[in-house]
Amino acid sequence: MSDPWNSIVRPTLLLDEARARRNIAAMAAKARRLGLRFRPHFKTHQSAAVGEWFRHEGVSAITVSSPAMAEYFAAHGWDDILVAFPLNPREIDALRRLAARVRLGVLIESAAAARFLREHMEHPLDVWLEIDAGYHRSGMDWRDLDAVSAAARAVREGGGALHLRGLLSHNGLTYGVRGAEAVRRCHGEALARLRAVRDGLAGQGVSGLEISVGDTPACSLSDDFSGVDEIRPGNFVLYDAMQYFIGSCRAEQIAAAVLCPVTAVYPARGEVVIHGGAVHLAREAVADAAGRPVFGLAAQRNGVGWGDFLPDTAVARLSQEHGVVSAPAEMLRRIHPGDLLPIIPSHSCLTVAAMGGFLLLDGRSLPAMPRPQ
Amino acid sequence: MSDPWNSIVRPTLLLDEARARRNIAAMAAKARRLGLRFRPHFKTHQSAAVGEWFRHEGVSAITVSSPAMAEYFAAHGWDDILVAFPLNPREIDALRRLAARVRLGVLIESAAAARFLREHMEHPLDVWLEIDAGYHRSGMDWRDLDAVSAAARAVREGGGALHLRGLLSHNGLTYGVRGAEAVRRCHGEALARLRAVRDGLAGQGVSGLEISVGDTPACSLSDDFSGVDEIRPGNFVLYDAMQYFIGSCRAEQIAAAVLCPVTAVYPARGEVVIHGGAVHLAREAVADAAGRPVFGLAAQRNGVGWGDFLPDTAVARLSQEHGVVSAPAEMLRRIHPGDLLPIIPSHSCLTVAAMGGFLLLDGRSLPAMPRPQ
Repeated sequence: MSDPWNSIVRPTLLLDEARARRNIAAMAAKARRLGLRFRPHFKTHQSAAVGEWFRHEGVSAITVSSPAMAEYFAAHGWDDILVAFPLNPREIDALRRLAARVRLGVLIESAAAARFLREHMEHPLDVWLEIDAGYHRSGMDWRDLDAVSAAARAVREGGGALHLRGLLSHNGLTYGVRGAEAVRRCHGEALARLRAVRDGLAGQGVSGLEISVGDTPACSLSDDFSGVDEIRPGNFVLYDAMQYFIGSCRAEQIAAAVLCPVTAVYPARGEVVIHGGAVHLAREAVADAAGRPVFGLAAQRNGVGWGDFLPDTAVARLSQEHGVVSAPAEMLRRIHPGDLLPIIPSHSCLTVAAMGGFLLLDGRSLPAMPRPQ
Repeated sequence: MSDPWNSIVRPTLLLDEARARRNIAAMAAKARRLGLRFRPHFKTHQSAAVGEWFRHEGVSAITVSSPAMAEYFAAHGWDDILVAFPLNPREIDALRRLAARVRLGVLIESAAAARFLREHMEHPLDVWLEIDAGYHRSGMDWRDLDAVSAAARAVREGGGALHLRGLLSHNGLTYGVRGAEAVRRCHGEALARLRAVRDGLAGQGVSGLEISVGDTPACSLSDDFSGVDEIRPGNFVLYDAMQYFIGSCRAEQIAAAVLCPVTAVYPARGEVVIHGGAVHLAREAVADAAGRPVFGLAAQRNGVGWGDFLPDTAVARLSQEHGVVSAPAEMLRRIHPGDLLPIIPSHSCLTVAAMGGFLLLDGRSLPAMPRPQ
């Protein structure tokens, strides 16, 4: 029987629609069960077509990571969009255009930003206060209640177009732990901090605030969302090697793999070279179960899709176009130049951004959003 | 005076044409002085327009990293192209089309690959034997003279379309050392190994082979190319933070920077957040002079370009769209949300691939090659 992918000549990002739809359905069901609004982050797939699979599960509100991505999805019929990225004052014109056509949410992390928005926005705008609950990427420190309170008041005092929606946080710390218990503990700590901020603000007369959180490990592994109104996971639609090692998913939930042509096998080195480098897989190392950094995990081919992980077969090094896969001797005997080796990416969001589109298992191509110009 | 880049709202890759042209002119002059053929690697800039700057310096032969890139440059008038990537048998049809229209070179690393080419190629083809001189990415081990000799004979016995051109190697080990002396020593060792292979083959009656090498550190820092016929550096056209730390270039030779909007300043953390993440800068850490991993170095703005590095101000962490820049207190007082901060990428080749095009300092846009479909 001839290979269904005989025509593939270079690294190609496969998307298993059935798995992705199951992942979406499961997260949507969980949100319903827990009484949470489900506002998935679309930066993972960046594709209007994949967006439709969410709509099929009743999703009507989404999260994006830039005004450009908001414009792309607004053009594809989404009308309730949160730009979950720190307010970039240089993009105020794009935000003004967006707010005129969709229900738009933005993040701020200072009273000055609230005043800036009030000066520039005439259409209604949902404003979220970004809280740093310990991850230390962006947001106001959860312990700095004065700053949060000042920002909240600056939004409310503005009145008019600005609507103070609540507290929003991304707890990236869950990506750094391993196992359900550790994820739940890490998530619980961050939630407690957010509730403390909300309570502190209520004590100062700023009440009625929602809480929005959204990391894929916690949304996959925890059932404790007490006090939370909205979840914003993104990565779960595809999952990847990082989520697998964290414990957020089982192997059979992973919905994306890069099919990479093998160019050479090196038995003496215990390595295989593939066409599949940093410009395809994207270069984010994740520690495997033994603590070794890997840039992707090799899987068995299985018809048009892929099956189990190949034992101890992982992308150990990447350069621009080359991937170096380490593999045990018995695996090296089964891999040959010209084979197509499925590689589960370490971080699927970055892989999608690098590849710019998908090939579905039925042979259809799905483009992702074009690069902003 | 208003900011000439007032209209820039999101991460934008600036290219300083004058610096890039000086880098090209200097490398072309060095090749002439040393009697070397200059076959620059175009994977760094991936731009037909930048390619013209090389033509202006007398370059007529180029290196690329994939058949798709060869097709792009062939369509822009280049007719002597080496695909310096391990032979991917799945791309044989593209190679056949290319060989029909340009002088084409490819790499092989086995006798089987030579036989495969002989069966499939009817148009003349330059065949290079890829030698692993210690870097252990791809190529035949330099100590395995039997394998190299068998591959060489398989090319020559074929006769007809295949022309055995010589030995080719990429010594990526020079990227891992620091300082001119260490680069020269590392380069000298690799060259000695390549000459040993050539001498060994000559002793077996396989003579007349050229040697092609090409890493930017050695091409920038060494004058010892004894026995070498061709150099293939690529990165030198732009340079970057990695080359700066290796010592391959001075700061004022770096020709590319990503202008990133500042979204927030965190004095308590000693950090700034910029819009400029893994999808813009690309995620390759380089160790700074103190050994800390950095993903880019911040520079002063200087009119339409950029000036000196800002002291101790570097991209310490990256997520998909966020960059976290660590900076000393006096710098934090001078940086404000809405500023545009020039970031010198850690590895410019990957940054260009991520950004997909350049903005010249005179305001013109230069697209790079589209993603292969």
